[in-house]
Amino acid sequence: RIFQPRRKLSLCLLASLSVCFCVCGAEDSAMENIVTEKKAEESHRQDSADLLIFILLLTLTILTIWLFKHRRFRFLHETGLAMIYGLLVGVVLRYGIHVPRDINNVTLSCHVNSSPATLLVNVSGKFYEYTLKGEISANEVSDVQDNEMLRKVTFDPEVFFNILLPPIIFHAGYSLKRRHFFRNMGSILAFAFVGTVVSCFIIGLLMYGCVMLMKQIGQLGGDFFFTDCLFFGAIVSATDPVTVLAIFNELQVDFDLYALLFGESVLNDAVAVVLSSSIVAYQPEGDNSHTFEAMAVLKSFGIFLGVFSGSFALGVATVSLTCPHVTKFTKLRDFQLLETALFFLMSWSTFLLAEACGFTGVVAVLFCGITQAHYTYNNLSPESQDRTKQLFELLNFLAENFIFSYMGLTLFTFQNHVFNPIFIVGAFLSVFLGRAANIYPLSFLLNLGRRNKISSNFQHMMMFAGLRGAMTFALSIRDTATYARQMMFSTTLLVVFFTVWICGGGTTQMLSCQHIRVGVDSDQDNSVSGVFLQIGPDGIERRSTKQESAWLFRLWYNFDHNYLKPILTHSGPPLTATLPACCGPLARCLTSPQAYENEGQLKDDDSDLILNDGNISLTYGDITVSTDATGTRTSGQPVGGINSDEALDRELTFGDHELVIRGTRLVLPMDDSEPPLPRDPRHHREL
Amino acid sequence: RIFQPRRKLSLCLLASLSVCFCVCGAEDSAMENIVTEKKAEESHRQDSADLLIFILLLTLTILTIWLFKHRRFRFLHETGLAMIYGLLVGVVLRYGIHVPRDINNVTLSCHVNSSPATLLVNVSGKFYEYTLKGEISANEVSDVQDNEMLRKVTFDPEVFFNILLPPIIFHAGYSLKRRHFFRNMGSILAFAFVGTVVSCFIIGLLMYGCVMLMKQIGQLGGDFFFTDCLFFGAIVSATDPVTVLAIFNELQVDFDLYALLFGESVLNDAVAVVLSSSIVAYQPEGDNSHTFEAMAVLKSFGIFLGVFSGSFALGVATVSLTCPHVTKFTKLRDFQLLETALFFLMSWSTFLLAEACGFTGVVAVLFCGITQAHYTYNNLSPESQDRTKQLFELLNFLAENFIFSYMGLTLFTFQNHVFNPIFIVGAFLSVFLGRAANIYPLSFLLNLGRRNKISSNFQHMMMFAGLRGAMTFALSIRDTATYARQMMFSTTLLVVFFTVWICGGGTTQMLSCQHIRVGVDSDQDNSVSGVFLQIGPDGIERRSTKQESAWLFRLWYNFDHNYLKPILTHSGPPLTATLPACCGPLARCLTSPQAYENEGQLKDDDSDLILNDGNISLTYGDITVSTDATGTRTSGQPVGGINSDEALDRELTFGDHELVIRGTRLVLPMDDSEPPLPRDPRHHREL
Repeated sequence: RIFQPRRKLSLCLLASLSVCFCVCGAEDSAMENIVTEKKAEESHRQDSADLLIFILLLTLTILTIWLFKHRRFRFLHETGLAMIYGLLVGVVLRYGIHVPRDINNVTLSCHVNSSPATLLVNVSGKFYEYTLKGEISANEVSDVQDNEMLRKVTFDPEVFFNILLPPIIFHAGYSLKRRHFFRNMGSILAFAFVGTVVSCFIIGLLMYGCVMLMKQIGQLGGDFFFTDCLFFGAIVSATDPVTVLAIFNELQVDFDLYALLFGESVLNDAVAVVLSSSIVAYQPEGDNSHTFEAMAVLKSFGIFLGVFSGSFALGVATVSLTCPHVTKFTKLRDFQLLETALFFLMSWSTFLLAEACGFTGVVAVLFCGITQAHYTYNNLSPESQDRTKQLFELLNFLAENFIFSYMGLTLFTFQNHVFNPIFIVGAFLSVFLGRAANIYPLSFLLNLGRRNKISSNFQHMMMFAGLRGAMTFALSIRDTATYARQMMFSTTLLVVFFTVWICGGGTTQMLSCQHIRVGVDSDQDNSVSGVFLQIGPDGIERRSTKQESAWLFRLWYNFDHNYLKPILTHSGPPLTATLPACCGPLARCLTSPQAYENEGQLKDDDSDLILNDGNISLTYGDITVSTDATGTRTSGQPVGGINSDEALDRELTFGDHELVIRGTRLVLPMDDSEPPLPRDPRHHREL
Repeated sequence: RIFQPRRKLSLCLLASLSVCFCVCGAEDSAMENIVTEKKAEESHRQDSADLLIFILLLTLTILTIWLFKHRRFRFLHETGLAMIYGLLVGVVLRYGIHVPRDINNVTLSCHVNSSPATLLVNVSGKFYEYTLKGEISANEVSDVQDNEMLRKVTFDPEVFFNILLPPIIFHAGYSLKRRHFFRNMGSILAFAFVGTVVSCFIIGLLMYGCVMLMKQIGQLGGDFFFTDCLFFGAIVSATDPVTVLAIFNELQVDFDLYALLFGESVLNDAVAVVLSSSIVAYQPEGDNSHTFEAMAVLKSFGIFLGVFSGSFALGVATVSLTCPHVTKFTKLRDFQLLETALFFLMSWSTFLLAEACGFTGVVAVLFCGITQAHYTYNNLSPESQDRTKQLFELLNFLAENFIFSYMGLTLFTFQNHVFNPIFIVGAFLSVFLGRAANIYPLSFLLNLGRRNKISSNFQHMMMFAGLRGAMTFALSIRDTATYARQMMFSTTLLVVFFTVWICGGGTTQMLSCQHIRVGVDSDQDNSVSGVFLQIGPDGIERRSTKQESAWLFRLWYNFDHNYLKPILTHSGPPLTATLPACCGPLARCLTSPQAYENEGQLKDDDSDLILNDGNISLTYGDITVSTDATGTRTSGQPVGGINSDEALDRELTFGDHELVIRGTRLVLPMDDSEPPLPRDPRHHREL
């Protein structure tokens, strides 16, 4: 009695269906056991082989990426490459390998009244336990028996949502460049919330028109309701410009553009997930379940708000209530392994807690990542900071490439593709228009309030960088039961392929075509006192704009700086200084000894966000002098191996070329609000 | 139609069995869908909550371990602690939480003739797909419906074997202290192979006597054959002294004793796995399947040899044929993330390949780990060496503690415990005698050949350190279908608890009672020229013994040094020097440029194993002088954060206090055969 756990882990809808040689009635039970065992072993070996295909695919991808990186090819990102390899393997599996149909396959039609989650089947006196895999449509029944090989390499769609996406999203939150993110927070929130909803409804409406047209000319083979259209709008509104961002990072494109795109795409995903689930939850009462009903719409809206804020609160609260305290007051930093393990487990438990409470784990994990980076990271030992960074980087890399290679594979191995030319053309058109209706009007409105305007070439770039990726795929593969969902899934695949290959591949061309500056060093682009410096490689342009720090942001910042940071981390002013006198004893017990040591230099690591005195900005003349020299120093390969204090410091302070945690520099307790390279800024001031 | 993948990943025998409210016949399909969806969602939330329990358990364990480490308690290891917490949660789940029995649970008795892997059930015109979970005995049927909560926290036993054990075993292989391992290879192999087989048969025979006795007095409630006894012997012969080794590491116990114990326990596991599977494979022909038959015994023996050597060959071959080449000839070391990902994937694919070929993945992964440490590690960039080390350290830590806490939990949550006092007493007795029959006679025989004898206090310590752990548990939980297996499982649990708590907790007492030296610095215990130095904390004792390097080992070493290392890594002499002239072109193309640079100093990193000239040993006088000073320098906490060249170097060269990769020092390309601390040995020679 050997199970197939690897399969259970991964391969779904498994349908080995290799019904045994019909051991009828009262045969020798020992012999039967042997047959069953052999069958199970065979199946386990097959599963291992299937998984091996994916592992080898990833290996191949890594080797080719290496070649590309080595030769500095930028037209194809690793994710695009993974898709190509996936496609190739898909073709081979589909047309190359012929699995002979097992004539012994039988469908046992038990005529029972219900479909319980677990079925106990009495086979000639012995009980066997079966678990429900899901419903399959009647026309699939023959497929199930036919295409064993193809179904074998099909994964349970929930694997993406519950195993592969969380590390990707967590990594995005953990590696958010917080300084630039917070500086553009207003715009990012507007793009993410308003923009996604606008895009969703525009796409939904356009697609509904398209579907109506198809119905008119008789091209529609099944039901397709308005809610389905809206659902499609929600899932393709989740942008994932990982390809573009990788190139931005490599070329050191303007960091405000980077922050806008990255922040938008990260929050985008969260909004799209919750939006799609509230659209699915739309259930008007009465018989006709696809009519408009105000109450049901309100309820859906309520679900959206509830689930989103719930997930947000849970992600932020669980982490900030436990992890920083634990890491702050224990001397865990002496044992890096324990620290790293704890960090990993706490983050995972946030996901599980959110799922257990009925919120969205992926959203919770995003805010968990941001919170961990903001508070916990500060308390970790330097080695653990590296470890956690590297661990999630690796997980993110593997999960991402796995998803993209699976995407390529599934174009050929998925059994129920519905490719409809009209729908596909309509989808491409509406995706384009939806993105345009998101970016341009919102940018116009935001520019009214922003001092640092989003220039038109930035807008075009954001429009162009609206790639669709892992999240869109995971949302669309989650449910492929109905005709409408199958058509959506097939179309979504094409949208992802097109945007990743064409838009992703054309990023460098687009950048030069839009005359967007590259080679901007994020740390030279230092806005310590609200002065916004941008030094292009030409060294000519130099703007000076007030950053957008709204009163809301200031309010939050002060609260965070005066209360949260001192409570949760070792940095910030001691609580005894910020809390009213009556809370003295409490303050003393919550403040870490290190905080008192820091008291001398009250400039916190986030101070570069809002401090407004001109004192430090006076030194800018000196700093800009050293820009070009340092810019070239950092544009080479990442420093391999930490050789000295200086190398470590440089690695921490400068932009790495991978998508690594930018926050690093910001949360190190001291010396951070100063520009990093002129190693002693006071020296400059004295000049 | 939402699945429960988290469950699919983990919780087995899932038996949610919450049969829906019996939606009979032709109800509204939409309503039915909603009910099904709600049910699935509910189940998913429950799964998340269950997994959350385990995560919180691990978190709690980590925090308590921290406290213990902080206060330097050594009487309870983290694994023992994890078991205690597991027990507590098990008690709460068993007696504290009352899940009301769902009266709607029904057993659907489809009377069909076979038990196919997948069942299609026709429920009023709709097809549902079910997968086989396994057979359950008739008396379990009521349990299935009764104890939902307990079955929910029960994992698929194969999870241990296919997900949790591989990283543990790989880490063991990867962190094998190769120098000490190879020096004692003969003894280790003897203990692992001969010892395990002897122990297995002794325990099997004793248990058979015990079972016969039970049958006589009517205490046996089911079949218990001789093969079952042998199987029991095999599974409890797998020792796992992780607790003891952790203390050894901390106290820096004699490294030969460490190597003997660690090497034995690592290989032990591999032998026990293959042995138990070949015992299961014993199937004499004819009706009575439990008689002795020479042919079947021979066949089992053949299976043992075939599977073991196959797994060994596969583990070594796949890795040494691919990974070092890839890492050697690509410039992958410029991209550490890719390198680490590749390393991880290659190691995993070895496991999958072995499973797909019908060999034992766990065994393959062990030798894969050793090979990776020996060849690939050498080619990795320093950062990747750290990354891989830390990654597998973390995985090992999490998996190990998870297994042990699950062990505690399952004592209360497992449904079919069979505790038989006679069997338990017999088992403890035979485990003790089996270990004794393994250690003492073999040590006597080995001492006849060894120059560096295994002293009697070492023998007692090895006897005492025969803990049973993760492997024994994983083997025994794998199959709990029959009465005999259930009794074995329950007894095994008790054996593990006893040995981990009592033997593990008493290690320090045992060490001082046996007068075994502690505080031996592995790197001072340097045997560059066959001289075997042991400097106790007292600094008096100094032995000089020839190490046991048999001709077989020399042969292998020469081959490895002259051909394998140059082909696979950057170290060793260039192939053009070692290969005959006719192979010139081939040699040139296989030798890496770095090898020529190394040509000047032909002393390879393993040279400390057999080089025999007295030149370097002359410098020992100088080195011993600096021993105590450096000994104290390294006995503090591990260096937190790499601050300089020196710190990095020191961390790499000296014994870390965690179970980290000892091989590190050995595989760094240069400067390694020299004793590490006197930073320029030539300087000493010139004195």
